[in-house]
Amino acid sequence: MRSDAPEPHAPPATTLDHLRRIAGAAAGTKSADGGLIVRGIATIADAGPEHVTWIAEKRFASALATSRAGAVIMPEGFAAPPMPAIVVPDVEAAIAKVLAYFDPVRERPVPGIHPTAVIGAGACIEPTAAIGAQARVGEGARIGAGTVVHPGAHVAANVAIGRDCSIGVNAYIGDHCRLGDRVVLKPGAVIGSDGFGFFYRDGRHNRVPQIGIVVLEDDVEIGANTCVDRAKVSATVIGRGSKIDNLVQVAHNCTFGPLCIVTAQVGLSGSTRVGAGVVFAGQAGTVHDVAICAGARLGARAVVTKDILAPGDYLGFPALPLTESKRLSVAQRRLPELLATIKDLTRRIAELEAERTGRRTSSG
Amino acid sequence: MRSDAPEPHAPPATTLDHLRRIAGAAAGTKSADGGLIVRGIATIADAGPEHVTWIAEKRFASALATSRAGAVIMPEGFAAPPMPAIVVPDVEAAIAKVLAYFDPVRERPVPGIHPTAVIGAGACIEPTAAIGAQARVGEGARIGAGTVVHPGAHVAANVAIGRDCSIGVNAYIGDHCRLGDRVVLKPGAVIGSDGFGFFYRDGRHNRVPQIGIVVLEDDVEIGANTCVDRAKVSATVIGRGSKIDNLVQVAHNCTFGPLCIVTAQVGLSGSTRVGAGVVFAGQAGTVHDVAICAGARLGARAVVTKDILAPGDYLGFPALPLTESKRLSVAQRRLPELLATIKDLTRRIAELEAERTGRRTSSG
Amino acid sequence: MRSDAPEPHAPPATTLDHLRRIAGAAAGTKSADGGLIVRGIATIADAGPEHVTWIAEKRFASALATSRAGAVIMPEGFAAPPMPAIVVPDVEAAIAKVLAYFDPVRERPVPGIHPTAVIGAGACIEPTAAIGAQARVGEGARIGAGTVVHPGAHVAANVAIGRDCSIGVNAYIGDHCRLGDRVVLKPGAVIGSDGFGFFYRDGRHNRVPQIGIVVLEDDVEIGANTCVDRAKVSATVIGRGSKIDNLVQVAHNCTFGPLCIVTAQVGLSGSTRVGAGVVFAGQAGTVHDVAICAGARLGARAVVTKDILAPGDYLGFPALPLTESKRLSVAQRRLPELLATIKDLTRRIAELEAERTGRRTSSG
Repeated sequence: MRSDAPEPHAPPATTLDHLRRIAGAAAGTKSADGGLIVRGIATIADAGPEHVTWIAEKRFASALATSRAGAVIMPEGFAAPPMPAIVVPDVEAAIAKVLAYFDPVRERPVPGIHPTAVIGAGACIEPTAAIGAQARVGEGARIGAGTVVHPGAHVAANVAIGRDCSIGVNAYIGDHCRLGDRVVLKPGAVIGSDGFGFFYRDGRHNRVPQIGIVVLEDDVEIGANTCVDRAKVSATVIGRGSKIDNLVQVAHNCTFGPLCIVTAQVGLSGSTRVGAGVVFAGQAGTVHDVAICAGARLGARAVVTKDILAPGDYLGFPALPLTESKRLSVAQRRLPELLATIKDLTRRIAELEAERTGRRTSSG
Repeated sequence: MRSDAPEPHAPPATTLDHLRRIAGAAAGTKSADGGLIVRGIATIADAGPEHVTWIAEKRFASALATSRAGAVIMPEGFAAPPMPAIVVPDVEAAIAKVLAYFDPVRERPVPGIHPTAVIGAGACIEPTAAIGAQARVGEGARIGAGTVVHPGAHVAANVAIGRDCSIGVNAYIGDHCRLGDRVVLKPGAVIGSDGFGFFYRDGRHNRVPQIGIVVLEDDVEIGANTCVDRAKVSATVIGRGSKIDNLVQVAHNCTFGPLCIVTAQVGLSGSTRVGAGVVFAGQAGTVHDVAICAGARLGARAVVTKDILAPGDYLGFPALPLTESKRLSVAQRRLPELLATIKDLTRRIAELEAERTGRRTSSG
Repeated sequence: MRSDAPEPHAPPATTLDHLRRIAGAAAGTKSADGGLIVRGIATIADAGPEHVTWIAEKRFASALATSRAGAVIMPEGFAAPPMPAIVVPDVEAAIAKVLAYFDPVRERPVPGIHPTAVIGAGACIEPTAAIGAQARVGEGARIGAGTVVHPGAHVAANVAIGRDCSIGVNAYIGDHCRLGDRVVLKPGAVIGSDGFGFFYRDGRHNRVPQIGIVVLEDDVEIGANTCVDRAKVSATVIGRGSKIDNLVQVAHNCTFGPLCIVTAQVGLSGSTRVGAGVVFAGQAGTVHDVAICAGARLGARAVVTKDILAPGDYLGFPALPLTESKRLSVAQRRLPELLATIKDLTRRIAELEAERTGRRTSSG
């Protein structure tokens, strides 16, 4: 690192009172400190006198005592901190708003088509859409108003993309796939690559044509280098508002209800059917053709091996309800102790048996 | 989604009799319904009166009763369905052929070199090959007849690619690597990146040069965003007709026999030697330098920790033969019950012992 | 494969004595064979009479008896091999040097800016840096001397990259991120994509702005298609000299000390704090917000679920110290046998109890 490099994005300074308005603090929370200058937001540990920090849970409140932060965003009902506070009814929303205020301007292609982009015949691109450098938009594709296709991204023929989407750098969308509005693809995401289907005949694996598409409904987000395969027939569907993290595999013909959360490196086998609001923690997975009901939450590394019929938490491989899984884990942790117990019992039984033999002999 | 969007790819309509010929049905299976118009193929649940559906296993036959499908592809020897049937000796092959018939035309660069592609000195590209927009072909590379290098793909210097290959959008092939005929790389695949090898000296990790290559033999398929690293010396080899899914890691100096199947997110450590026809289910893995004999099948999440010497199914970490692994799983599931049993036995032994003590005392 | 294809990179021939100098052999190890021609380096099994091979451990020495290698690199103190030897004090370093000697020339953009690259306003690119075909360098970005931005790579606005870095084909570096000197990104790596953070309000997942950056310190290496997310605030930091393999996920606000090793497909949850020299074997993981002390080594598939406070080896999910983990594994392997033992004990206790009852009855 060149330590003499100037900070590339000096955040705009503002006042504590201005941040209070941004954060949605009640009017009555103004204070004499309202004119305090704030230049950024930082964690409790990192914040300096010109930073605001935040605290969302009481158990972290004690850390404020040693923080150098100039101010703190916190929920109603907490004890008064040692620095000026922005007290808000919804601390998570307030933090998001203040983060957004300090978010530096990001690179973003301007509306129109970059001269190095390659546009296929019959592509229909709204004037307010932006097609970045070296992006490709295939024949017959449609790009909605306000959508940004970032540099190097590839929108294949006959793809339909809604309004205000962001197609990340070097991302790929295969032929005929459909994206709703406000869909975000992060860099390197691959949507609509062929599903993995073969049948063995005549000494080789023959490909099963994958003639379906991928549908990403409104407000879906797909992580960097994540893959969502096109369906064998019909569509692989990611439901409205679902968010998928990086390096996830979604195989052909999976269907998701709305508002699911899929954390990094999860792998979903073909034809997994996922209900509304299902959560997958990191590196979880499913076997082929299982259904997971709305409201189920799969823990890290859990593997769903049969249908999940009730909402709630599931852990393990095979994925079991939380209480059952924990009971198993506890029992497993006790295994070495169990071995010792059994050894002891075996010895004691042998003693009792020897004594019995002795009794029989002596009484014989 | 803009629900008023026209269907981008109306499939071509045909007749039931035409599909019978395509599917390889015996001539005698013609029926009065032969003129039925079919416009597509769909699952039993999704199919309408102008769709053909399919059924490959008897256990799904009952679903036909409530299907709206206009016709069904099915194997010989099943009960007559409630709709016209296409009865075939090889149902999987028949389904593949009908899927292929209804497969919409895909985007495909035309033969020749797109004006935005960048071609290195001395590259040798057959006239029937197609180099897409913004693709790069390095110095001295050779591209065989009928091969398509899709847009944004990168073929580095001195790579040799055979005939009728498909190098996916934004895929990468490193210097000197060699691909046979009919090889498919899906979007974002990385072939021939340097292997991960270091040795620690003088307070840092020093790189071990990786001077080998990757060889992908004929008919190999590599999934989206999958990585196959180049060898330290010699070659990382994927054998003829092997198929690798998305997001798989193949480390340096792995070698595969022909016709292997590697499902998504599998991770193979360096120098894994894989025999012919080995199957890896999702998220399986290997440790460094193990050999897996022909015909072994690794279950989901299995980790091979030592050589596998016999064909058959293996599960678990460490990977064990199926029967042994299942016996372990069953035993593990019974652990909580076991704890209760042992608690009970302990109590009962204590009682017997107490009684014995009583006897001794009373007889003393 | 076209078997008639000429070898694309014939390595330069040299003599055994020259290789001895390269490898750092002591002057006294010269022999009458010093003029032997060597054309390449290969494994013991693959090497022919014009190859040098190597041996680093005594247990492989017996393989030399049947090797066709013309010469062998080996450590001091081994028995004399059947072919001329290059005896060295540091065999790993010697192998690396000889590999480097035979490393074929790789494709590398020449200094300057390729005419198809797209450079933003105010970007500052050192004259000795090379910007490849169709690469993009955003507004205000700085590229240090000797750094290579390979074709199709994307350096976003206000990124700062040091000297002698290599930014791989189609890699991505997001706005404002900072790279030190000699940093290597392999193809498809995604640095500085937004972290995965949402909060649920008003019936949808709302994004938490991710306004921090990624810092890759000097000598860091990032694998192909690996993702390192930008921080919510402040920075996700990969410490000096750390090496990360392919397809790894590093979530927002992770921090690494220097000289860590992270093998393929590892997944690190948000805010993981990793000390100096920590090693993660393949497919390991962490849960959110754990700290791992310097010198810890996580085995394959290990999952860190709470802070690790002592250096050493850890295995399993949850990750436990090696000895504890092995004791558990051994106990688990004995479970089926345990079930049989308990069944036997149960029977024997029942017998003793029945006998007691008999005694009571007979004595009653």
